[in-house]
Amino acid sequence: MRVIIINGPNLNLLGVREPEIYGNQSFETYLELLKEHFPNCELSYFQSNSEGAIIDCIHREGFLADGIIINAGAYTHSSPAIADALSAVPAKAIEVHISNVFKREGFRQHSYLSPVVEGVICGLGMESYKLALHSLIDNKL
Amino acid sequence: MRVIIINGPNLNLLGVREPEIYGNQSFETYLELLKEHFPNCELSYFQSNSEGAIIDCIHREGFLADGIIINAGAYTHSSPAIADALSAVPAKAIEVHISNVFKREGFRQHSYLSPVVEGVICGLGMESYKLALHSLIDNKL
Amino acid sequence: MRVIIINGPNLNLLGVREPEIYGNQSFETYLELLKEHFPNCELSYFQSNSEGAIIDCIHREGFLADGIIINAGAYTHSSPAIADALSAVPAKAIEVHISNVFKREGFRQHSYLSPVVEGVICGLGMESYKLALHSLIDNKL
Amino acid sequence: MRVIIINGPNLNLLGVREPEIYGNQSFETYLELLKEHFPNCELSYFQSNSEGAIIDCIHREGFLADGIIINAGAYTHSSPAIADALSAVPAKAIEVHISNVFKREGFRQHSYLSPVVEGVICGLGMESYKLALHSLIDNKL
Amino acid sequence: MRVIIINGPNLNLLGVREPEIYGNQSFETYLELLKEHFPNCELSYFQSNSEGAIIDCIHREGFLADGIIINAGAYTHSSPAIADALSAVPAKAIEVHISNVFKREGFRQHSYLSPVVEGVICGLGMESYKLALHSLIDNKL
Amino acid sequence: MRVIIINGPNLNLLGVREPEIYGNQSFETYLELLKEHFPNCELSYFQSNSEGAIIDCIHREGFLADGIIINAGAYTHSSPAIADALSAVPAKAIEVHISNVFKREGFRQHSYLSPVVEGVICGLGMESYKLALHSLIDNKL
Amino acid sequence: MRVIIINGPNLNLLGVREPEIYGNQSFETYLELLKEHFPNCELSYFQSNSEGAIIDCIHREGFLADGIIINAGAYTHSSPAIADALSAVPAKAIEVHISNVFKREGFRQHSYLSPVVEGVICGLGMESYKLALHSLIDNKL
Amino acid sequence: MRVIIINGPNLNLLGVREPEIYGNQSFETYLELLKEHFPNCELSYFQSNSEGAIIDCIHREGFLADGIIINAGAYTHSSPAIADALSAVPAKAIEVHISNVFKREGFRQHSYLSPVVEGVICGLGMESYKLALHSLIDNKL
Amino acid sequence: MRVIIINGPNLNLLGVREPEIYGNQSFETYLELLKEHFPNCELSYFQSNSEGAIIDCIHREGFLADGIIINAGAYTHSSPAIADALSAVPAKAIEVHISNVFKREGFRQHSYLSPVVEGVICGLGMESYKLALHSLIDNKL
Amino acid sequence: MRVIIINGPNLNLLGVREPEIYGNQSFETYLELLKEHFPNCELSYFQSNSEGAIIDCIHREGFLADGIIINAGAYTHSSPAIADALSAVPAKAIEVHISNVFKREGFRQHSYLSPVVEGVICGLGMESYKLALHSLIDNKL
Amino acid sequence: MRVIIINGPNLNLLGVREPEIYGNQSFETYLELLKEHFPNCELSYFQSNSEGAIIDCIHREGFLADGIIINAGAYTHSSPAIADALSAVPAKAIEVHISNVFKREGFRQHSYLSPVVEGVICGLGMESYKLALHSLIDNKL
Amino acid sequence: MRVIIINGPNLNLLGVREPEIYGNQSFETYLELLKEHFPNCELSYFQSNSEGAIIDCIHREGFLADGIIINAGAYTHSSPAIADALSAVPAKAIEVHISNVFKREGFRQHSYLSPVVEGVICGLGMESYKLALHSLIDNKL
Repeated sequence: MRVIIINGPNLNLLGVREPEIYGNQSFETYLELLKEHFPNCELSYFQSNSEGAIIDCIHREGFLADGIIINAGAYTHSSPAIADALSAVPAKAIEVHISNVFKREGFRQHSYLSPVVEGVICGLGMESYKLALHSLIDNKL
Repeated sequence: MRVIIINGPNLNLLGVREPEIYGNQSFETYLELLKEHFPNCELSYFQSNSEGAIIDCIHREGFLADGIIINAGAYTHSSPAIADALSAVPAKAIEVHISNVFKREGFRQHSYLSPVVEGVICGLGMESYKLALHSLIDNKL
Repeated sequence: MRVIIINGPNLNLLGVREPEIYGNQSFETYLELLKEHFPNCELSYFQSNSEGAIIDCIHREGFLADGIIINAGAYTHSSPAIADALSAVPAKAIEVHISNVFKREGFRQHSYLSPVVEGVICGLGMESYKLALHSLIDNKL
Repeated sequence: MRVIIINGPNLNLLGVREPEIYGNQSFETYLELLKEHFPNCELSYFQSNSEGAIIDCIHREGFLADGIIINAGAYTHSSPAIADALSAVPAKAIEVHISNVFKREGFRQHSYLSPVVEGVICGLGMESYKLALHSLIDNKL
Repeated sequence: MRVIIINGPNLNLLGVREPEIYGNQSFETYLELLKEHFPNCELSYFQSNSEGAIIDCIHREGFLADGIIINAGAYTHSSPAIADALSAVPAKAIEVHISNVFKREGFRQHSYLSPVVEGVICGLGMESYKLALHSLIDNKL
Repeated sequence: MRVIIINGPNLNLLGVREPEIYGNQSFETYLELLKEHFPNCELSYFQSNSEGAIIDCIHREGFLADGIIINAGAYTHSSPAIADALSAVPAKAIEVHISNVFKREGFRQHSYLSPVVEGVICGLGMESYKLALHSLIDNKL
Repeated sequence: MRVIIINGPNLNLLGVREPEIYGNQSFETYLELLKEHFPNCELSYFQSNSEGAIIDCIHREGFLADGIIINAGAYTHSSPAIADALSAVPAKAIEVHISNVFKREGFRQHSYLSPVVEGVICGLGMESYKLALHSLIDNKL
Repeated sequence: MRVIIINGPNLNLLGVREPEIYGNQSFETYLELLKEHFPNCELSYFQSNSEGAIIDCIHREGFLADGIIINAGAYTHSSPAIADALSAVPAKAIEVHISNVFKREGFRQHSYLSPVVEGVICGLGMESYKLALHSLIDNKL
Repeated sequence: MRVIIINGPNLNLLGVREPEIYGNQSFETYLELLKEHFPNCELSYFQSNSEGAIIDCIHREGFLADGIIINAGAYTHSSPAIADALSAVPAKAIEVHISNVFKREGFRQHSYLSPVVEGVICGLGMESYKLALHSLIDNKL
Repeated sequence: MRVIIINGPNLNLLGVREPEIYGNQSFETYLELLKEHFPNCELSYFQSNSEGAIIDCIHREGFLADGIIINAGAYTHSSPAIADALSAVPAKAIEVHISNVFKREGFRQHSYLSPVVEGVICGLGMESYKLALHSLIDNKL
Repeated sequence: MRVIIINGPNLNLLGVREPEIYGNQSFETYLELLKEHFPNCELSYFQSNSEGAIIDCIHREGFLADGIIINAGAYTHSSPAIADALSAVPAKAIEVHISNVFKREGFRQHSYLSPVVEGVICGLGMESYKLALHSLIDNKL
Repeated sequence: MRVIIINGPNLNLLGVREPEIYGNQSFETYLELLKEHFPNCELSYFQSNSEGAIIDCIHREGFLADGIIINAGAYTHSSPAIADALSAVPAKAIEVHISNVFKREGFRQHSYLSPVVEGVICGLGMESYKLALHSLIDNKL
């Protein structure tokens, strides 16, 4: 099984920004743990602060991968274009958020992505990615 | 670890209603599989179509259990009282939906529960419950 | 043909409350007249002030009856859970209101039930139930 | 008892348009059946695609008839002028819709007529007209 | 000076409908009084329940008359087409309402005509027409 | 007959501000013309930029005068307190605006005063006051 | 004088939940103090987490008691059915909230009950109940 | 190929109204040019200021023509009845506007017709009709 | 304990306006009764129709008094400035309304003051002031 | 005449994605046909999934080209920045959509671009681009 | 250059209220520093809690001064009358706020003044006034 | 002190676009003047039309600079991602707009950035940047 994890804007700062909240583990380090935990899964990773680059990546990977795990950060709430990209490719997608967006500002209550993905996991910390992988692999979505 | 799964209105019909969609497995049968999968977790189950009975259950279990996994069905969208109950007890709660509510009617886009739970898992089928258990156990939320 | 009439909250007060408006005929008395008028119809009746009990009743009867005539009172406007219950069972449902809800407060202009029932009859007094029965029987909905 | 049935825009196409849905019975044919069913009722019929002609008809008949059964089609949702006409005449009016408008587009959820008529019957097919006649005659509205 | 008074839907019932409120004076009778009061004004009158006929009249008279006094009845609130017609002709228009529409239903609080007329007079009874004539004549609008 | 004209904020600048639009006639000068035109009417005048002073004036005059002509300027759109004052006194009130407020900013489309006055005259220039006086005197409102 | 105090969902946790905020006095203990303070008042108490049970109680007591003091908790904001029940019985009702709901989430700014009760007391702590009793007794509402 | 062009309210004034903007070419003159340009297309034309007459025309022509080009003027924004008529007939329809309605008043941003036509052409002047004909003929919509 | 009662616009008319509703007791007379009832409370009174004067009073008294009882009349719904003044001073404030504002016009459903005061008492008549005093004194807010 | 066609996000997938709907013709192939059809037009093409790159392109070409034909895909609905870019350059722009966006999700009903372009063509398939070229060339917009 | 600084409601409390936040410098003291910093500017100051007095001041000074620096406090959000006053006078105005109003309550997100002033400076503390003076003097607005 | 000025989309056209409005000074030229005016400030500059590049820049500079002056152009109104980037870095930010956005289209009334910056300066022309620098340097924000 081939899965790509796509992180959107500002998520490159994980481990740097506010370590008392997010810990000082970068996503790259966490990715290694994920790879160990799912040795049979071909797992790749992409991060960009650019909406266009994320769409390019979905186009590139979305015809090759079985699954996409996407945390589009704030683009979740402002990008119908990323939603269209996810709709256009055959890979199954799961939307992930580290924090519980429903406890935050009003504009974060609406996601352009949710109606076009298989499912949503939010608020369960870094482990949200692992749960998404479990879902893709176990459920054979 | 002690966890209670609470299912709300109409979820007693799982396995009976529209089996071509939901399969013909009742939640009780699925629960047995969950118990086998998490042998060290003290797992109990409650279902009711009554908002009041669900609140009573949260009061009764919420001071004893470590975690609550709640699929409040349509009460998700109409019951601030269940949200208040979850806020009042020390157990950590995870909101679960079998289907992707964001693909459905407008009124299902708003959840009273989401702002008071740890996190939300939706759209990932029956396995959503298993993922919630993983999160409670692994993350020691 | 088997039909159940389900009345929701506060409708147990018919004949007691404001008799100058509603008359002093209880629904039970009126039910007897209905039974006489439709002797070939197996007609039963359920009233509850509890949303959960109404859902339980729909589950219990909705797989056995041919038709459901439901006046959900104020739950019409606040209960997506009852609407879900009606959707989940095979019996055809007709929504009934004794008064013309469109002449009343703003919140009564929206019904969760209307989009999931066959049709709606409102404002035509107690006889609204009789019209609903005519529709179920004559139209073989 | 004298009753006029008024049909609004596009309802002249009944029996012609989409016969697989609406059948190939024109309203005129159905009207004959209604007249047979209610031999003591002086029943007349008017259809127009013009809002003004419908108002003219309500003025003309509304002081003579005991009851008006009106299916104003799409004017239901756009014509406060027809509502004013119904308010201005002494005849009792019942609003009728063949289909369940509450299952359709958002703009069809609001009726200018509902607050000024006795009652509303919708979604119960062509028989909706018969039910409205029953109500006018039996209830002596 | 040439002025046309245009009355919209249901205003033909003045003097017939609810005489205890509106008096039993028809608009035609009142018009005679207006003509006497403004002998130097060439005053004509048009009433129709049809939106299209009102537009036709505005087109026909709006290039000939100096002023239009229009009480569009309920079309005030539903007809951008009449507003467009008023904008398209050189005659100055004044919007008139016999009753104070701001004391009535919510939908009557918005007028499509108000932004395209010179001014609005409402709530001052039948005399509202006389005031509008005064304004057209004295102000040489 | 005793009538008070009340002008609200910024109307003291009439004749000073933008004379190319409003002319260089102050309201005081215009008032003299009004008094000449209505010699049998006891006409007084009050202007203030203070909401409280306007309310005080309504209380003081509203039990003595037969009519109030009020142009509350921008307080029209922001002062439910002035509306309450008008409701509390027996004098009949007419709301007046020199310009057509319906051609202006959105916030000027709503008036707190309109639902509590007899009628509204707007957009007909300084003569709007004269029309209001005509209405009070002729109609014996 | 006979008065019933009705507490809604989650109010059974008073004294247990968050004692640093609410103190560790249960409502039952506080009730004893109230009874001592109003020895001539026949005071009874009902609490339930079930909307239906609260309606049943209003029906049962509302024809016997002179007054109802109701703190419907979160049902205040979601239950038109409880409001209908209060409207249907002759007892005078006062709505009470221990905390100032206007300082809390947006959904708590709207109460279905407020338009059907005599008055509202909120934010004044447990003593709010005492004030409501004073009002019922002293004012002979 | 048979195509009917339907123009709605106020479009009869083309060539008369504001010639500095719209030129002094009437639609009839322009129609001759269109006919020359598409000699193999059976092109007819209908204009009315009446909503009902437009619906009648759609009914009459919509079963005979291959295509309808409709500029419904202000009825675009106020007539669900015309939209229903377009839905009811087999001819393909294209919505046309001479001016760019999206640069104009807010109410012109919504079209009842757009969701039921093949496509929309707006803002491209009189040539918009020619483009619509190109589309119907070349695309064999 | 030192308490000031502040009444806002139009409340100076108590006892004068509509005596059949409000009685013919002025607030000054009622104030004497209050002073007798709370002999140990230093009670002062201020009324103004001016928003600015009310703010001045809050500034002057709000640093000296222990409590403020404020019935801001219609300024309740239009004055964030009075709310800011209440927030700026150390005295505890209680908002009071004689009538049940929730039974009245829509604009009265929102209070700028409620989120910044201790609590709200409304609809309980003149005695509302006494209840507020009880609350301030007994609860030592 | 020099014209640039700009396609936004996901439109690079034309011919690849859902060929049963969109055909298996890429936009590049279609472009060749366009060039043949308009031999005297200097036609260039740009596609990007990046909002910034589209703005850069508008800046680069918008001072050189006579016309811009833009299908901004989902950026139509989320990018005021692209609208600003179109406003800033002298080239005339036409907005194009292959599908009828008014039949799709609610968020697609609003375009930031429409108010700043000459006109809009939508729903007429790939030929929409050809129509836009016709309009630019024939109308000499 | 002549400039007036106008402070609105509650700003007289600067230096008194919450000194740990606002410091214990009164605006009068700060004004002396400003005067020293801009010796060539004729700087005057006005503060009032009364909307009417602020309008009076704008009228008095707005024809004499070159610039107005206005911090209207909460009247920013509730007073179209002050905005009208600023529009009526020739002096250039700059709106100032000490705190960042966009971080505060929802009602503070809208300013009646912003659309009628030259510019807005907010959130930059007491120095906001100095920046506004710089802008008036350096830019010769 | 180290400060970076970040300009968003379309601001590269300053000096080119509409020179009669914006002058023919490019931002680069203006920047030289700023550097001369603040010789002790290490001032750098970045402009991009790409949302992602702006976020990258904020990440790169936001941990090094003391202050960020950002004019995000139209991204102000559409990019929660830029707001998140500003929140994630320690540098203090000031939002700047050359024109008064509150005089422009409705969508420009909302800024995603305002709630996360220190303050906002808008409408004061190119000098707005200088004022922001003054604030950063003098206030030592």
